Amino acid sequence: MSLITPRTLKGFRDVLPVRALHQQRMIRTLQDVFRAHGYGPIETPALEYAEILKGKGGEDSDKELFEFTDKGGRPVALRFDLTVPLARFVAEHQNDLVFPFRRSHIGSCWRGERPQRGRAREFLQCDADLIGPESVAADAEILVLMCAAYEALDVGLVTLRINDRRVLGGIVGHLAPGVPVVAALRALDKREKLGEATVRDELVAAGASAEGAAALIDVTTPRSDASEVFAALEANLAADDAAGRAGLEGLRRVLELAAASGVRDGALRVDPSVARGLDYYTGIVLEAQLDALPDIGSVGSGGRYDDLASLYTKSRLPGVGCSIGITRLLDAMEALGKATDKEAPADVLVVHPGDDALPRAFAIAATLRRAGIGAEVFPEDKKHGQQMRYADKAGIPFVVTVEADGGWHAKRLADGSFASFADEASLVAWLRAPGA
Amino acid sequence: MSLITPRTLKGFRDVLPVRALHQQRMIRTLQDVFRAHGYGPIETPALEYAEILKGKGGEDSDKELFEFTDKGGRPVALRFDLTVPLARFVAEHQNDLVFPFRRSHIGSCWRGERPQRGRAREFLQCDADLIGPESVAADAEILVLMCAAYEALDVGLVTLRINDRRVLGGIVGHLAPGVPVVAALRALDKREKLGEATVRDELVAAGASAEGAAALIDVTTPRSDASEVFAALEANLAADDAAGRAGLEGLRRVLELAAASGVRDGALRVDPSVARGLDYYTGIVLEAQLDALPDIGSVGSGGRYDDLASLYTKSRLPGVGCSIGITRLLDAMEALGKATDKEAPADVLVVHPGDDALPRAFAIAATLRRAGIGAEVFPEDKKHGQQMRYADKAGIPFVVTVEADGGWHAKRLADGSFASFADEASLVAWLRAPGA
Repeated sequence: MSLITPRTLKGFRDVLPVRALHQQRMIRTLQDVFRAHGYGPIETPALEYAEILKGKGGEDSDKELFEFTDKGGRPVALRFDLTVPLARFVAEHQNDLVFPFRRSHIGSCWRGERPQRGRAREFLQCDADLIGPESVAADAEILVLMCAAYEALDVGLVTLRINDRRVLGGIVGHLAPGVPVVAALRALDKREKLGEATVRDELVAAGASAEGAAALIDVTTPRSDASEVFAALEANLAADDAAGRAGLEGLRRVLELAAASGVRDGALRVDPSVARGLDYYTGIVLEAQLDALPDIGSVGSGGRYDDLASLYTKSRLPGVGCSIGITRLLDAMEALGKATDKEAPADVLVVHPGDDALPRAFAIAATLRRAGIGAEVFPEDKKHGQQMRYADKAGIPFVVTVEADGGWHAKRLADGSFASFADEASLVAWLRAPGA
Repeated sequence: MSLITPRTLKGFRDVLPVRALHQQRMIRTLQDVFRAHGYGPIETPALEYAEILKGKGGEDSDKELFEFTDKGGRPVALRFDLTVPLARFVAEHQNDLVFPFRRSHIGSCWRGERPQRGRAREFLQCDADLIGPESVAADAEILVLMCAAYEALDVGLVTLRINDRRVLGGIVGHLAPGVPVVAALRALDKREKLGEATVRDELVAAGASAEGAAALIDVTTPRSDASEVFAALEANLAADDAAGRAGLEGLRRVLELAAASGVRDGALRVDPSVARGLDYYTGIVLEAQLDALPDIGSVGSGGRYDDLASLYTKSRLPGVGCSIGITRLLDAMEALGKATDKEAPADVLVVHPGDDALPRAFAIAATLRRAGIGAEVFPEDKKHGQQMRYADKAGIPFVVTVEADGGWHAKRLADGSFASFADEASLVAWLRAPGA
């Protein structure tokens, strides 16, 4: 029989133990932060009717769908994000949910045939959303949650760049009347990649005057001084632009509420260049970047969307939410040398002279686990040296040897320190604080 | 614009907050148990080349595959279990792994067009496997791990029924020579559903004598006395059946090692009727059932498979592993009334007189979270009564009201007990131990 080559599909990858353990720890940290803020979990299917997923994420998402017809003849697709399934979920279960409805959701999503090279076709999405309120308090809550998440993840300083689509819309309407807002935002979004000249040409091609395009680029240029940013934005909104002014006031207010929550100075920055690619945001928008590695791109994003569920229900279900980019954060931690250490899941390897000693090896391993110390027994009848080499290769920090006299010998591999014990309690105490 | 009906596919379902929270807690408990036994996590893609997934799970699995051709023309399929992907994973990464290789894996799997009514087409699989050793110690380790898992999950008493395919094979060969072992096991596996008469007819149709069929049914009948079971099995193995006798000795030995590990009496039971449906088991096999609800079927299973990776590699990679049936356990807990209580993720709702008080509401919520008390702020400017009704409906146990004088009023909704506080520390202390 010829062998089948063991391989994964392009854009898909296995997660090996060391990385998987770091990922598990990050996920659990996020679950804790979400719960502490009132965001319990939900789950939705990986596979949905294709019509549910299409048409809301924009044309690019549609093209990228993993779509097929199932054996029952139904057009189905794998979810490409967790936001569209949330909209469907809330529309479907609105009578069973309590509003304001907070939920978190961590799960895989799939996008095929993605334009950029090397982009993953399967990726972990990690979202929190608050559905119901249209208030600034809700916007602020999401920002506070995100700041708490990055702090708990211990990934170094993260800056949240925030903006508001209503402010941007108002400024576009004022400085480049007649230019569709979405076209202007798409042009402005290309500043970093293509440069200001290209953005200007694109704005003029869309109908802006040369002066209008220049002013638009100028007012959306990031500035470090917050009051300058607010002044520039305010000066370029029409006097009667209630929505734009509400957006600006909202930005002021979320900064105030974040400060009241103890968010560190500088964690939030109003940045008029932030537009976000997706079409469905209607209010505040945000992008998170890692201060130590800004070039790896966004490590989180979000914003307010006031009519996401309108494809599925006539109920008005406004919301605000965020995504934390766990995969990119893991990549960043590895790039910064913070998540590459060999890390065994167990603290102790129990080694033994052979099968006759196995009952005692199993017994002491069970005792250690009951004391909160992870333990594994070497599961074969092998020479002592071979068992020790395994502990070393697997990165297990301690070895406990079952001795012929009924006692145990314990060794810390990092420094070779060791001791012998006749009773379990002393062994446990030493493993908890060797050398103490 | 006409609305799209918000609905999920047949056999797929959403998990709503209360159940999702229980599920998350169960998963985390299992992660802890796995780590304590040295089983770190891995992840593999949901989607694999179809050829990888086909041919190893048996014909039924092939028929049930969600299979399609992706936009790049590749035949792909969604994984139907985590064991076949593990075999591919170990074959592919064998040079990067440390053996004995222990791994855990919790993730969704998909099976379409399943014969039984109401069976889920998407389900959560939760596996632990030990790859490398062929020893009885490895088998015992998996049993000890499973017992620890059920105990930690706090689902009531679970009985692990164990058997060995080599013993069964030896007995079939001895009592019904010429009958293919797999055919005999498939027939015996139907005893509970179809009755002994049908099993006997099927065995005879497969080539057994009437006496042989009757003896086979008799010796594989469950008995409560362990020594009777061993005696019956031993008496019906051929004298020169080394494999069968090794299997029997293995069963004796795993009971001994489980006892040494402190596994409670009665948690393990040798049951000669356990055959397991899948073709790939080669040694010990096991089925877990919930003592309080045996009729809901298996809540876990596993066994030894000595050539699972042979489709992908010439290396010999024997293994033993188990699956814990989280979904069925959750169903059982709901049926037993143990997981149906309304359970809010946050401990405290902070209510407030209006937008002006929001900074103080945000500040106290942040303080409570730093003290380990989950807190949410009511995110809109609504009347006090409306905020209180939300807390009640959401099942949040405590309400903290921001008061005009700068202090806080705290109330426990369950009994209406309350108190007022002028400093944060006293408020935190009361929330931790109200009435103390």
